Amino acid sequence: MGSFQGHALPGSFFLLAAVWWAGKCSLWRASRRSKSLGSTRLASRTSQRRLEVAEGAVVLFFSFVGMLAEQFAAGGPRLRLYDSSHWEQLMNWQHATMYLFFGLAGAVALVVHTTEATPLALDRLMLAVAFFNEGFLFFFHLHGRSPLDVHVHHLLLFAIFGAALVAFLEVFHRGNAALELLRCTLTLLQGSWFWQIGFVLYPPSGPAWDLEDHDNVMFVTMCFSWHLAVALLLVSAVYWTVSCAVRSRLRRTPPMEMGLLKSRDRDPESEDEIL
Amino acid sequence: MGSFQGHALPGSFFLLAAVWWAGKCSLWRASRRSKSLGSTRLASRTSQRRLEVAEGAVVLFFSFVGMLAEQFAAGGPRLRLYDSSHWEQLMNWQHATMYLFFGLAGAVALVVHTTEATPLALDRLMLAVAFFNEGFLFFFHLHGRSPLDVHVHHLLLFAIFGAALVAFLEVFHRGNAALELLRCTLTLLQGSWFWQIGFVLYPPSGPAWDLEDHDNVMFVTMCFSWHLAVALLLVSAVYWTVSCAVRSRLRRTPPMEMGLLKSRDRDPESEDEIL
Amino acid sequence: MGSFQGHALPGSFFLLAAVWWAGKCSLWRASRRSKSLGSTRLASRTSQRRLEVAEGAVVLFFSFVGMLAEQFAAGGPRLRLYDSSHWEQLMNWQHATMYLFFGLAGAVALVVHTTEATPLALDRLMLAVAFFNEGFLFFFHLHGRSPLDVHVHHLLLFAIFGAALVAFLEVFHRGNAALELLRCTLTLLQGSWFWQIGFVLYPPSGPAWDLEDHDNVMFVTMCFSWHLAVALLLVSAVYWTVSCAVRSRLRRTPPMEMGLLKSRDRDPESEDEIL
Amino acid sequence: MGSFQGHALPGSFFLLAAVWWAGKCSLWRASRRSKSLGSTRLASRTSQRRLEVAEGAVVLFFSFVGMLAEQFAAGGPRLRLYDSSHWEQLMNWQHATMYLFFGLAGAVALVVHTTEATPLALDRLMLAVAFFNEGFLFFFHLHGRSPLDVHVHHLLLFAIFGAALVAFLEVFHRGNAALELLRCTLTLLQGSWFWQIGFVLYPPSGPAWDLEDHDNVMFVTMCFSWHLAVALLLVSAVYWTVSCAVRSRLRRTPPMEMGLLKSRDRDPESEDEIL
Repeated sequence: MGSFQGHALPGSFFLLAAVWWAGKCSLWRASRRSKSLGSTRLASRTSQRRLEVAEGAVVLFFSFVGMLAEQFAAGGPRLRLYDSSHWEQLMNWQHATMYLFFGLAGAVALVVHTTEATPLALDRLMLAVAFFNEGFLFFFHLHGRSPLDVHVHHLLLFAIFGAALVAFLEVFHRGNAALELLRCTLTLLQGSWFWQIGFVLYPPSGPAWDLEDHDNVMFVTMCFSWHLAVALLLVSAVYWTVSCAVRSRLRRTPPMEMGLLKSRDRDPESEDEIL
Repeated sequence: MGSFQGHALPGSFFLLAAVWWAGKCSLWRASRRSKSLGSTRLASRTSQRRLEVAEGAVVLFFSFVGMLAEQFAAGGPRLRLYDSSHWEQLMNWQHATMYLFFGLAGAVALVVHTTEATPLALDRLMLAVAFFNEGFLFFFHLHGRSPLDVHVHHLLLFAIFGAALVAFLEVFHRGNAALELLRCTLTLLQGSWFWQIGFVLYPPSGPAWDLEDHDNVMFVTMCFSWHLAVALLLVSAVYWTVSCAVRSRLRRTPPMEMGLLKSRDRDPESEDEIL
Repeated sequence: MGSFQGHALPGSFFLLAAVWWAGKCSLWRASRRSKSLGSTRLASRTSQRRLEVAEGAVVLFFSFVGMLAEQFAAGGPRLRLYDSSHWEQLMNWQHATMYLFFGLAGAVALVVHTTEATPLALDRLMLAVAFFNEGFLFFFHLHGRSPLDVHVHHLLLFAIFGAALVAFLEVFHRGNAALELLRCTLTLLQGSWFWQIGFVLYPPSGPAWDLEDHDNVMFVTMCFSWHLAVALLLVSAVYWTVSCAVRSRLRRTPPMEMGLLKSRDRDPESEDEIL
Repeated sequence: MGSFQGHALPGSFFLLAAVWWAGKCSLWRASRRSKSLGSTRLASRTSQRRLEVAEGAVVLFFSFVGMLAEQFAAGGPRLRLYDSSHWEQLMNWQHATMYLFFGLAGAVALVVHTTEATPLALDRLMLAVAFFNEGFLFFFHLHGRSPLDVHVHHLLLFAIFGAALVAFLEVFHRGNAALELLRCTLTLLQGSWFWQIGFVLYPPSGPAWDLEDHDNVMFVTMCFSWHLAVALLLVSAVYWTVSCAVRSRLRRTPPMEMGLLKSRDRDPESEDEIL
């Protein structure tokens, strides 16, 4: 999978997931606020649940497709692991393993939100495990590559392990908006950084980068910060847009109690308790 | 203890402990749920306590046996530590020290659940210390071995220190199902990885592995992920089986209030508070 | 920016920010205490909010000025990033990136305290991200320098990452006085250490330091501890002064209920709950 | 201070501090329990406060003595820091700096428990800072020593940074018995390990240790585990003794309500809430 497409594909998946999560989290927060304003039409508990189930199913499906692609696409190992004297396409097997864990996370989300016997926190725990496993495999993936190649993947690990840590913290602080938005940001960062890795290591046009030059290492480090800044701005934009859309919809059909609750709602501290 | 049996034995112990914990945790959670459904027959507080005391006693006993085996089995140091000019069988002494800490953890669990003056959280704290001590000794255990040998033991440290961290977090979040199941998973992972180490370093049949080959290192890393996935599935299976068994037993003797409480129980958020 | 002024300038900014934060945190705590004593004149919620908004605006403004200075001051890259064959002034670009993140933190603080839809905790989260980003860029900044130069910057990282960690913990424990004062201390430490780096690497007078001497490394380590001690004393002094000033103002206009509440206030445990 | 006495002295201080803390923590817990049993004679809040103030004063005094000893004892730098061409006795200055931070921690404890305006949590925070500073200075202390010398000091860092971490966690979980006993254990471990370092590096009798031998490194690692086990046992013994003494004193003068409260007290879960 050492190609431009091989990095652009997972990057696009993570970008989509991040934007989806940012929208979902913003919508729920906004609808929770709208509920405290006396309105209950937007995003009821049942529809939230259905959304979560659908998300789990989609994640499960794409992980399965990803595993199949890694195994049976041109040059894949086709489920053979060891061939007389050497391991078959260990890279593909490792990527398939990463997909496997995201598939497990999807399956757990599916089970958690369809049955009642399973503790809710397990979906975040499995997500943390899936991210951790991805970072873990990448970490031992980099033997004997050129300095710039190693460095861009090390930077990726910051985004991956960061997302794993934030998802693990969500086991204890479920529904904390700061953590949810941070998870979206780090997933977005991961997605866009996959694209950047593709452009740096396999430039589709123009000259190849000098993989030994220290100045390139320094630029790439700074570039990672810029991706983080852009990810922060994008998540903020999504949050802002959704919040405004929900509020404008509410304004058109104002509930009766709105005037009564307004003073409490103005209290900046009350926000904190909802967190 | 550098042999296949020497790795299979502790591996089996950890496998047993993990399955036992998974069953216990699932049973208690299910019985707590059943209690909130109006039934109190399964697993009363007193029987829970008795179970904990029995567990502590069993752990204490096997740790003692383990220490004796390390000391007096063929080739053991028989309690001699220093022999005129060199240390006697430091390996065996280190393994005995590991058993000693698990023995202490068992003793603390015994005391915590038989007396009333001792804070409950101490049993998880001692478990965390025992796991940490095991990892600590393994960490300084690996001087001058071949790359693959060092690597499989480094991977083991992920499972050990992970279990130590989770047990330490349980000091503050006792009864959190996500943490308990994660601890079971990591202990199961540790147990099965001990077996894997045995097969890699001392293959009972077939050719020996090339301990210097980097491809083997990469395969073994991925293999660790697979063990983790299998451990997750096994713990899920145990949890699922116990939950279903408890529920089917409840269904045969439905309590009066069940209908009344059902709507509250359907609320997905209420689960969270029980956590 | 490799000059005495280049280190003294950010150092002064951090010193100012730290003293300002220490004063603000002390004033609010003291006024919260005064409120529990029956008085509500000092620092109402609205004036607190105005102060926060002003702080955000000032941070935003100075970050913007800092970015412009890095770009257009003598020797700056003037927004050119790549010049035919090499990167332009990567150092200046990196410093501008650090300012950018503090600017984002200021903007988020501005938004959080002017609108109601944004969760409060985001300002601390962005502050943590800004500190983390600063430490992250410094960490990969030190390639191929002399040992003492690397060491003084490594010591700086303790202060920077410490501040990032404390700000992140404040996301969960907002208003915890111990964390707030620790953040002030670490920011003060960072500021004074920037000055120290200036004096060590670019001594304005006297002989240059031997950058290879290990004794210098050892002295500089201890010197960092002294800076920490001085920072602790300074923050304590600010806290003490503000507390005394508020209390003396309260004593001149004692509220009616003060006598009634005094016994509860004497209770040392009650302090803890306010934390 | 590279001598047997130079390690035995701080070791003895830490041993004393640990036993004192273990006793204090056990006594307060036992008296809190006795209070919940209807008795309030043992350890009132005022006497607890007086004890804390006395402890702070003693710590402050001994830290001051320690700093003076480091400066003015035979071979000390007598407050000269730089002598024409080289640093004066940096070792002694570093040790004095360590004492300085413990002195600050004592001073903060004194202020926290005598005034009402200071948040309680600051005493644990300063203790964490003092331990962290000790570990920080030791960490950069070990340049160019022999392997065994470096290793015994590295092991010491586990105890020091462990104590720092636990004290920092107590900022958020004040009064958690598990954390308090762990802090006592780690301080005891630190004290006894100082003695062990003295015996290893400067054996008062018998032949010197071979500082390059890897077997010695392995034995010393295991020995650290044994010290930890002994520290755990000693803290448990202190806790047990104090608990029994308090209970036997209570039994002689049983309060009226004891019978009524007993059933609630038997509930193992109630313990947890007190934590």
